[in-house]
Amino acid sequence: MEDEHDSQVVTNRQIILKHYVKGFPKESDMILTTAAVELKVPAGAGEAILLKNLYLSCDPYMRHRMGILHDSYTTSFTPGQPIIGLGVGRVVDSSHPGFEKGELVWGMTQWEDYTLIQSDVESLFKITNKAVPLSYYTGILGMPGATAYFGFHEVCSPKEGETVFVSAAAGAVGQLVGQFAKSVGCYVIGSAGSEEKVDLLKNKLGFDDAFNYKKEPDLNIALKRYFPKGIDIYFENVGGNMLEAVLLNMRCYGRIAACGMISQYNLEEPEGVRHLFEIVAKRIRMEGFVVFDYYPKYNKFSDTIISLLDQGKISYVEDIVEGLENAPSALIKLFHGANFGKQVVVVARE
Amino acid sequence: MEDEHDSQVVTNRQIILKHYVKGFPKESDMILTTAAVELKVPAGAGEAILLKNLYLSCDPYMRHRMGILHDSYTTSFTPGQPIIGLGVGRVVDSSHPGFEKGELVWGMTQWEDYTLIQSDVESLFKITNKAVPLSYYTGILGMPGATAYFGFHEVCSPKEGETVFVSAAAGAVGQLVGQFAKSVGCYVIGSAGSEEKVDLLKNKLGFDDAFNYKKEPDLNIALKRYFPKGIDIYFENVGGNMLEAVLLNMRCYGRIAACGMISQYNLEEPEGVRHLFEIVAKRIRMEGFVVFDYYPKYNKFSDTIISLLDQGKISYVEDIVEGLENAPSALIKLFHGANFGKQVVVVARE
Repeated sequence: MEDEHDSQVVTNRQIILKHYVKGFPKESDMILTTAAVELKVPAGAGEAILLKNLYLSCDPYMRHRMGILHDSYTTSFTPGQPIIGLGVGRVVDSSHPGFEKGELVWGMTQWEDYTLIQSDVESLFKITNKAVPLSYYTGILGMPGATAYFGFHEVCSPKEGETVFVSAAAGAVGQLVGQFAKSVGCYVIGSAGSEEKVDLLKNKLGFDDAFNYKKEPDLNIALKRYFPKGIDIYFENVGGNMLEAVLLNMRCYGRIAACGMISQYNLEEPEGVRHLFEIVAKRIRMEGFVVFDYYPKYNKFSDTIISLLDQGKISYVEDIVEGLENAPSALIKLFHGANFGKQVVVVARE
Repeated sequence: MEDEHDSQVVTNRQIILKHYVKGFPKESDMILTTAAVELKVPAGAGEAILLKNLYLSCDPYMRHRMGILHDSYTTSFTPGQPIIGLGVGRVVDSSHPGFEKGELVWGMTQWEDYTLIQSDVESLFKITNKAVPLSYYTGILGMPGATAYFGFHEVCSPKEGETVFVSAAAGAVGQLVGQFAKSVGCYVIGSAGSEEKVDLLKNKLGFDDAFNYKKEPDLNIALKRYFPKGIDIYFENVGGNMLEAVLLNMRCYGRIAACGMISQYNLEEPEGVRHLFEIVAKRIRMEGFVVFDYYPKYNKFSDTIISLLDQGKISYVEDIVEGLENAPSALIKLFHGANFGKQVVVVARE
């Protein structure tokens, strides 16, 4: 009996935040440690589940949580504790009546081999469709997919024939926004930070055109060239001088869905954006959104996406890194645009 | 017969734009000239009306038209030609079937004693209610009134109990926004640039509170003090560092109606506004609007306002300057916050 019990204790590797981060995060801001974990929900844990983490998601918003936050929509990570993030996992043990051993879920977990989830168990989504890659639940079928879907369809109010501009267009969200825009008959152009990404957008993802913003000395001039009649819809992922240039190129009654501003996340002080008077003169609606607000509609969204995937009508590009130990460098890639598609970390394949 | 004809030619004083303006406008950018005008619509003018201008309106947006504009919602004035602006006038002669001699109208006219209106005659609004001061048709019953009414009720989506902040609150628009906000049960605070204006807001116009932004070394700290729980609705009239401070103090799902940004109009280069990421994190909707879009609903608006005026439920403060020759200095006052309420110029009283 002692043997049986001991056999359930395994090593739990963890990626720990060493300290609050200022400026660009570095690998040395995180550290790999090991602990022991018993493969069952501890007595006294209440209604909880023990998750074996399979895939972890690297997302830009995580940068906020690495720093000190005040009055934010999210909270800081705790130095000395594992990084918290979205992921896909398998239930190893459960004392929660809603979850059974063996079930697959996606939602908030931690950067480690095994995570005990005590609070917010209900916020996990069960994965029932297993015909798609499990990693997709960190991307097209997870938070970034829902962000693109609801952000585009509900915040942008798209109409057939309108012009759409997507920044960070080869990223986890942007690549889907472009495809959704095409699906409703819009003309869509994306910007990205390498020739390889531009090629992906134009030749694999169906964007009408794309450009490498790093090769453009003047973004305002670039946008005037790509959108001679102006932009009806801007899906904002980057902020800063791109937003400034976009404002000068918006059309009357244009809409800006403010999803993220990755260019600003590693700055000690955010940049000022000029030309906001364009919002008045052109009657622009700029609207921020956070995907959590749309989660009650998740099932309808996932049914739609799975159907599109089944029919081969939508593509998704992932940048998959193997091994929990490589999660810190994978996360950091995001802030240098070094990821090619959705950044995923494989902790275990089953 | 010659005498009778001559008696109809009178002097037409005109305020001419001398040249395009950079930076703050000066009186010397405008010049008073005189011409002769025959008091009838010239033969060959087509369907036109000759207007005797009574009241002229000084409005911040006019600053744009004094400079060189590209791709704007409005066009530049023409150097050497009279300033164009809103006003109230009486029809002196008409060859237009829709207008008769003696009728009162408000709408776009020119800064002169008499204006021949050939195009856009249909955009003039007839004044039928004469129980209110005629000058009100440059303010509470004209463009600024409609701006406040539609901007607040239709762009801000106000709900009872919400907190509202109005900048330039003692101006032509702001003073009404505050009163409309109170009428739907909001808590409203205004900012203005003098103690006298603050007193007006608090003690005459029914604002819950008001402050002098010039006395606040840190607008973010000031707003935190006045709105400890944050701002639900911001009616934006000034832009620049006030907008930046407001963004830090908005509540989740807050709305910013972008009406104007007067702090930016005289700058060679607009200031950058930081903290736009707050729009994402707090799901803020910032929406520009231009009152022309609401003019089809003008009659309903004016009926509402006239009823409120009749019942003594709304106040309006005007800063009335006598004489066309004083129109340039009256306009310039706006950009220094030297007007006390709606800036009006009396050209003639009847």
